[in-house]
Amino acid sequence: MIHNMTEDQITLYVIKALKENKRKEFEAIIDELQPYDIAQIYADLPEKHRTRFLFFLNIDALADLIQELGSEEQIDVLNRLGIEKSGKVLDMMDNDDLASLLEDLSPEKIASLLSGMKKGEAKIVQDIMNYPAETAGRLMTNRFVWIRDYYTVREAVDKLKSFAELAETINYLYVIDQNRRLVGVVSYRDLLIADTQEKIRDIMYERVISVLEDTDQEEVARLIERYDFLAIPVVNAEHVLIGIITVDDIIDVVIREANEDIEKLSASGKSIDFETKSFVAAYRRLPWLVLLLFIGLISGSIISSYEHTLEKVVALAFFMPMISGMTGNTGTQSLAVVVRGLVSNDIDKRVITKLILRELSVGVIIGVTCGVLISVIALVWQGNFILGLVVGSSLLLTLIIGTLAGTIIPIILYRLNIDPAIASGPLITTLNDIFSLVTYFGIATMFIEYLL
Amino acid sequence: MIHNMTEDQITLYVIKALKENKRKEFEAIIDELQPYDIAQIYADLPEKHRTRFLFFLNIDALADLIQELGSEEQIDVLNRLGIEKSGKVLDMMDNDDLASLLEDLSPEKIASLLSGMKKGEAKIVQDIMNYPAETAGRLMTNRFVWIRDYYTVREAVDKLKSFAELAETINYLYVIDQNRRLVGVVSYRDLLIADTQEKIRDIMYERVISVLEDTDQEEVARLIERYDFLAIPVVNAEHVLIGIITVDDIIDVVIREANEDIEKLSASGKSIDFETKSFVAAYRRLPWLVLLLFIGLISGSIISSYEHTLEKVVALAFFMPMISGMTGNTGTQSLAVVVRGLVSNDIDKRVITKLILRELSVGVIIGVTCGVLISVIALVWQGNFILGLVVGSSLLLTLIIGTLAGTIIPIILYRLNIDPAIASGPLITTLNDIFSLVTYFGIATMFIEYLL
Repeated sequence: MIHNMTEDQITLYVIKALKENKRKEFEAIIDELQPYDIAQIYADLPEKHRTRFLFFLNIDALADLIQELGSEEQIDVLNRLGIEKSGKVLDMMDNDDLASLLEDLSPEKIASLLSGMKKGEAKIVQDIMNYPAETAGRLMTNRFVWIRDYYTVREAVDKLKSFAELAETINYLYVIDQNRRLVGVVSYRDLLIADTQEKIRDIMYERVISVLEDTDQEEVARLIERYDFLAIPVVNAEHVLIGIITVDDIIDVVIREANEDIEKLSASGKSIDFETKSFVAAYRRLPWLVLLLFIGLISGSIISSYEHTLEKVVALAFFMPMISGMTGNTGTQSLAVVVRGLVSNDIDKRVITKLILRELSVGVIIGVTCGVLISVIALVWQGNFILGLVVGSSLLLTLIIGTLAGTIIPIILYRLNIDPAIASGPLITTLNDIFSLVTYFGIATMFIEYLL
Repeated sequence: MIHNMTEDQITLYVIKALKENKRKEFEAIIDELQPYDIAQIYADLPEKHRTRFLFFLNIDALADLIQELGSEEQIDVLNRLGIEKSGKVLDMMDNDDLASLLEDLSPEKIASLLSGMKKGEAKIVQDIMNYPAETAGRLMTNRFVWIRDYYTVREAVDKLKSFAELAETINYLYVIDQNRRLVGVVSYRDLLIADTQEKIRDIMYERVISVLEDTDQEEVARLIERYDFLAIPVVNAEHVLIGIITVDDIIDVVIREANEDIEKLSASGKSIDFETKSFVAAYRRLPWLVLLLFIGLISGSIISSYEHTLEKVVALAFFMPMISGMTGNTGTQSLAVVVRGLVSNDIDKRVITKLILRELSVGVIIGVTCGVLISVIALVWQGNFILGLVVGSSLLLTLIIGTLAGTIIPIILYRLNIDPAIASGPLITTLNDIFSLVTYFGIATMFIEYLL
């Protein structure tokens, strides 16, 4: 009925059904919509219609809806539903989504929400929340269907049918042995094209690629991306199947990790988006800025220690922004290459050595090119051959140092298992600022008598 | 057999099979491996075994293998196979992968490769290559199975079975009408749990979300991410189904787009990774650096125009790196927020106004905080109250300007449909450098008599 209506028309139609209290018509529309669209309509709805909207949805649809909302709205919806109904909705939610809903709440609020849930479901969620953040354990859901290898295809399909509502649509059935250890996998397509009497063990694929519960989420994403999987099974140390991770969660991980890399490079502060309030955004950005203010003062005190050099040849100040800007920039370029490279490469000694040597030669090539260029410009502009030489050789040196700093510092932090967020762009830029000023004024002071 | 072997053991086993010319054993192993793993083994193989390795693989496995290789290796493999066999392999490849294999080659090489292919397949690939880069048309594959709404579930499954080898494993069958227009979708799971005599029209989902052939790939990724789809159908203006895009290609798009954003923010140059040769990397990074060198000289000439101010109060130079560093940094922070926001938000006037006002107040909050802080520090350090005031008020102003520049410049470029790569981090930083120097020395010159 509604597949030709625009979003606005659908919203108006829903409001009409709510006003006139026509539940049948309401359900007929909702049935045709994706969870994301239902959430959009809910968000656009005037306040006065919201409670009835929620009241008209069944438990399944509520669970779908809530997974699409932001965390404040989620709590608002649960409060409107009341403890009993919200318990049922939480029971139906994917465990991983529920765990991330709960993780920011106070212990009392968590306890109160869990109390409305079935004991078994509440336990599962608590287990998931015990895994460290950003591991496979936190991403996995236990809503999957397992089968045994002696099942026939028909038995497997029958089991799938009876769990169809509960299981996530993941395209694979995982095969376990009597100890619940993962021994194989079959895809829905394999089941569809197989003869119904065939045994699972004859059609299953045995070299199943799985991850451990404590595998880092970036590693999980890398595997899914490499193998083009739609889901990946999670096992514990005994190879017992304990959950699955689906590709839709992995897309979210990939986006989140990319945003984190960008936060690192720009020191823009954690999770600021278009919706963040000004005070919150300023509060998140300030720590970095204040730190950089003090580091900037270090540069200042370096300059002040060369005050006499600078007083004699004020022209040296003209080239300061260019030299420190270029050095900072070449460092950021190297940093970006390293940070993105850590995402998709396996890092070992050989890779690191090769990378550092590569960046060293990049630094030399860049340094020689820009150094010669600026020498000529400085000579022409200021008519001073020695000044040209000082500026040019400083730039050559600082570009090499800057390139190496942008490469080596993040690698060292990565190897020391220190949060590489410390190696953010502005930090590298500011460190390179300091290196470049020391180099520049050091060389200038050495040649000071020829500069006058 | 091999599911307990390590990668190295498998490689050794493969080499043994190749040396002893035992094709059966070779095939038994390859059969159990994922395409990515086969490609890894191929990459690790000594040169002398490679041709036999390729010769032992069947056409299907070769097509899978080639899709996992880098572009130089792809051409190498095709050359080893010879024109006839490579034509068969290309026929079996996914069209979208083949199109991206071909796009970097010379017209002669493309013609020679296409000549070995079936006419129909070659035509499809050429059609795909005619779509603009980064659109749905370029990502889609035509290897999908369509069904009609009057089919029974059994008929649909039978059709799937007969095309099982050809079709990508995508979890959905799309339903078309007599004019090939898209009218519905059923998932493999729907087929498995339905009764075999049911009609497709009774179980299909009619409100199919689809994209047009010229939809931007970022928009496609946004839809797949929102709706947690495993694939999305592509239609033309007449709503005729012309292809599908699968989630694995979308993960690649998400990673690529994130890398592009990072390239923008760091101006690190297009596609430099761990494998890029030094000369190529330096060549890609140099244009930006040389441009920034000249922009840096503009900063220099601004300073030189305030030479007299600077000669009188050399202490002004001490605060230059701090002010320009902070201004550049706050601009990069804002830029990062905007660039990432453009990925996931629908941009209209209301959103833009709200964002600019938000960033304005962020700028004011940050500016006041840091301005007061530096005034006090400057007063204590240099013992000059007016100097503190000059530095503090300059920082207040430049932080507000920097924040707004980092927000407004990328938005203007985005609205003008100019490649926002121009608004890269270093450019904003350098522009902010210029703004900050003009403001700082302007204010200092105004107060010069009090500073002495």
